[in-house]
Order: sequence, then C-alpha cells, then structure tokens
Amino acid sequence: MLSKTDSINIVAVNNFPEIIAGDNLPGIIVNSILDDNINIDNDDIVLVAQKVVSKAENRIVDLINIQPSEFSKTVGKEVAKDPKLVEVILSETQKIIRMDLRKKNKGRLIVETRNGLILANAGVDTSNVSGGNCVTLLPLDPDSSARKIKDHIKRKIQKRVAVIITDTVGRPWRDGLVDIAIGCAGIKVLDDQRGVKDSGGFTLNATVMATADQVAAAAGILMGKNSKTPLIIVKGLKYKKNNKGSKALIRNPREDLFR
Amino acid sequence: MLSKTDSINIVAVNNFPEIIAGDNLPGIIVNSILDDNINIDNDDIVLVAQKVVSKAENRIVDLINIQPSEFSKTVGKEVAKDPKLVEVILSETQKIIRMDLRKKNKGRLIVETRNGLILANAGVDTSNVSGGNCVTLLPLDPDSSARKIKDHIKRKIQKRVAVIITDTVGRPWRDGLVDIAIGCAGIKVLDDQRGVKDSGGFTLNATVMATADQVAAAAGILMGKNSKTPLIIVKGLKYKKNNKGSKALIRNPREDLFR
Repeated sequence: MLSKTDSINIVAVNNFPEIIAGDNLPGIIVNSILDDNINIDNDDIVLVAQKVVSKAENRIVDLINIQPSEFSKTVGKEVAKDPKLVEVILSETQKIIRMDLRKKNKGRLIVETRNGLILANAGVDTSNVSGGNCVTLLPLDPDSSARKIKDHIKRKIQKRVAVIITDTVGRPWRDGLVDIAIGCAGIKVLDDQRGVKDSGGFTLNATVMATADQVAAAAGILMGKNSKTPLIIVKGLKYKKNNKGSKALIRNPREDLFR
Repeated sequence: MLSKTDSINIVAVNNFPEIIAGDNLPGIIVNSILDDNINIDNDDIVLVAQKVVSKAENRIVDLINIQPSEFSKTVGKEVAKDPKLVEVILSETQKIIRMDLRKKNKGRLIVETRNGLILANAGVDTSNVSGGNCVTLLPLDPDSSARKIKDHIKRKIQKRVAVIITDTVGRPWRDGLVDIAIGCAGIKVLDDQRGVKDSGGFTLNATVMATADQVAAAAGILMGKNSKTPLIIVKGLKYKKNNKGSKALIRNPREDLFR
C-alpha cells in the first residue's frame, strides 16, 4: 500500500549528452545526475528512455546492410514501407498480432517481440538516430540493462535505487502514446492489493495496480520526445521491491482476449 | 512541448471525506484542499477519481431493484456472475467488444460504453460502495463533471486549473491496472509533437503523446485503491490547454485494430 506517500516529485535531469554506441551508459547517468546537482536518495526511482539504452548497447542497424526477404518485399510494396525496415521489424518478432496493410496507416505491424512485449513495429524506431538509414532495436534484455544501472549507482554513490527502462507505445482503443516499463530492477512491478479492505469494509477483488507502468507514464510526462530528457528521477514514492524484473507486467497469453 | 518543465510535484489531498449521493463535490474538493493547507496555483491540475464523482452524482444502483433480462440471466448463469450485475453492465453498453465466459475469469465483459470508452464491465464497480448490493456507474458526462469542478475552483479561490476525472482500467497484453483520463477540462489531452525536429534533426513522425492519460497515471500512483485519496494535485507541469474535453483520447473505431 502506498497510503503513507503524501507527495512525489518527478525531476528531469538536464544536459544529458547525446549517446553513441559503446558509451558507458551507467557511468554517464551517474555523472549527469551529479552534474545537474540532483541529490539521489535511497529508494529514488531512476527512469531511462529505451532509446539511449539501445544506442549505448549498439542496438543500431544501418538499413543499408539489410537484405530483405521476399515476404518483407511484398509487405513493403503493399504499404509503401521500406522492405529493409520491414525485414528488421520481422527479425525482432516472434508473432504477428495484427497487420494493417492500408497505405494511409503506413503499414502498421503490431507484433509480439522476442521478449514478449506487444508493440507496433517491434519497437524498431527511426527517430533520434544519427544517420538517415539507421534504426534502433529494443535492448536485448532490458531487465539486465536496468540492473546494471542500479548496480552502478549503488557502487558509485552508495544509494539503493530502483531503475525502470521505459518505452513509448500506442494502445488499442485510445489515441496518443504513453510510456510503459519494459525493463526494471529493484521495484515490484505489480502492486497486488487484493485482500485489502476498501473504505466500505469490503474486500477489493481485482485491484492489482501496474505500479511500474504508472511510474513510467509519470516520468514520460517530462521526457519529451526529442530525446533531450531521457533521464528522470522519481522521488518520495514508497513502493514494494523485488528483483524479478518486468516480466510480471506481461499478461499471460491464455488470459489475453486481444491477441 | 514540455521541455521547459524541469520538475513536477504530485500531492495527495488527505482527509477527503466519504462522499454520498447528492454531495456538492466541487465544494467538498475546494474545502479539502484548503483544510489540507495545499496551496493551489494557476495551471495546477486537479485529479479526481471517478468513484467519488459517480457517488456525488448519484450514479449508484441497488441491484435489488434490477430485473435481469433473459440474456443477462443466461450470461450470469454461464459465468457465476449475478445476472442483475450483468443487466446493469449491459445497460451501460453500446457494443460488446469481447466476452470471456470462462468461470475462472469471472465472466469478463469488455464493452464500449455509451461514452465510447472501452472498459471491462462498462466501468460498473462493486467496490467502495456502501451497502453490499450497490454498484456505481460511470458519470453520465465526465467532461461536464470536470468542467463544473474547474469552474467552482475559479469562482471560489480565483485559480485557473485543469481538472481530470480518472478511472482505473485493465489493458490488453499487460497485467495490472492503470489510471486513465475519462473526463477533462482545461487541458489539451493530446500533445501533438509531429513536425518537431528530433535531436538528430529529423522530423518526428508519429509522436502524439496522450498527456492527459500520462498525468492520470501519475496521479494514480498516489490514489491508492481504497478510496481514501481520490483527490490529487499535480503542480509545476507546463501543458497545452483547450476546452474540448477528453474525447480526442478515444481512437477512431475505423483506425482501431482491436475491436
């Protein structure tokens, strides 16, 4: 229960540098926080946009080097989408959930990624990458990326924080994008409040809050989308902890009515 | 663009009273804020949980008074769900999107409400209602409810705020609930960043952020689900404004791959 939390503060870290492949991201994160004179406390939550993690981990593909399959060529022709980009998306895919081939929708591919996330274009992103032909892929193991940042912060400044890697995603039924947690360390991603009595004295029956996604959305408000503020600190939140990463946020496919 | 916002603060209003049908909710909101010594500034965002709005507006149904249809009886029998509850849910429904009759899933009904929201059980809620047979329905016009609160705050304490009515919802593909904006006043719910140049100098192509939903999720972190903190203030956020309410958050059904 979070009932003792009266206020939280969400702080954007300014002057975060442009990240390139091979950068020591955990080190850059600590330096940016220190440079910006932000005081890190135990239990702060450090949120990092997927894009900078992907770049640092060299999850960058130059489309020039891609040889599209016949299937990718067919899809690409149908939807006026670069078949090389289609090829990269499908290489990150374990299952196609929906394919919208109408040109005006620019060939939306909603797929399940190798990590089990369901995302448009498998999270492959063409914006904010230097070089007009380069795209980023999601980190291979975002939970591991989060853990490395958490561990580095502990080592460098002796603070025990949680870390969330966020991505910006579309949703069924609702317009506009929101941020979600795709990689986590040190936070229990679901807060199960079943069994808690509500204010009428009745037992709540279906209240499992997606705490990590709510925190990701909160941070997303400040991230902006021009990649200038990919690092956000959430302060003052009392949250439950574990070291199980983000996987509990993915709904069991057998319980999912929308696959 | 929100790039000039460096930090935001999310504050829970304590000691919010139990709401009953007919209560003057806008007045109670202002009094609670004042009683809690929270300083309201222009451009603060006031978030109110749907449940207290529904109660104040007497959107409460005693199941004892409901006569279920044959269809509701059939569904109720299939899924061990009270046919009277099924009847109420269907009375709030304009279209059934998915129906999961498996008992272990307690007869999930994912429907489009009369306001166009897609929600489990049409937003009909059995928790936090006094009387074991009473359920709440969503406010008839949540945008109007938000506007009334906004106008009352302007009148009483001369501050120009935005107001968001939130609901707690499940989502396809992801476990755990999040809060979304179902009624809005004084905030532009989508922030269209298309045309903005990203940090690589490229034009962003699909970045329309669901700002009101992100703010609702942020507030949801502090709301808890036991209805003790249904009133949250977000301070310090620079957001775009309009008076068009929440409707732009609902995806055009023809563009929706998951109906």
